[in-house]
Amino acid sequence: MVDKLSDNGRKAALETLSGWTHDPERDAISRRFQFADFSEAFAFMTRTALLAEKMDHHPEWFNVYNRVDVTLTTHDCDGLSERDVRMATAMEGFAA
Amino acid sequence: MVDKLSDNGRKAALETLSGWTHDPERDAISRRFQFADFSEAFAFMTRTALLAEKMDHHPEWFNVYNRVDVTLTTHDCDGLSERDVRMATAMEGFAA
Repeated sequence: MVDKLSDNGRKAALETLSGWTHDPERDAISRRFQFADFSEAFAFMTRTALLAEKMDHHPEWFNVYNRVDVTLTTHDCDGLSERDVRMATAMEGFAA
Repeated sequence: MVDKLSDNGRKAALETLSGWTHDPERDAISRRFQFADFSEAFAFMTRTALLAEKMDHHPEWFNVYNRVDVTLTTHDCDGLSERDVRMATAMEGFAA
């Protein structure tokens, strides 16, 4: 099992991330990533997909051309967990 | 340039496709694809992405785990074109 982040844990985690917004209703975080074109966007999605499969932790995402809108939350704890923070941090790295 | 399908052209095209619904407001077609798991869903997305890049015609799509919701329309003609029909047909093949 995985623990839901506490309010303080979430606040501390969000300070280490860049550009994510927290949706309190779903206890999820979201961010838009923009790239030069579809090829770059899908390369980012592919790197993320490989990690997601390895972590067994998968994003919700919408893509159109060079844009990827990502939402992260953890079904096992019905809210935000350390897994989402790890995934968000990795995605920032892939997009950098 | 690419021509928008006529009403009759669209109706004839939709008869060759399976499971797609037409949104008259956007003149777009949409379909949900479901797979066994994320790995299968992303394999489908990857095959579609390669074709999309080759055709320079890209889907709008949302993925969560084993589900991929696809919308196709053609920006160049502000509606449905033969390109969308070709893409939809190919996606059905990839998902089969």
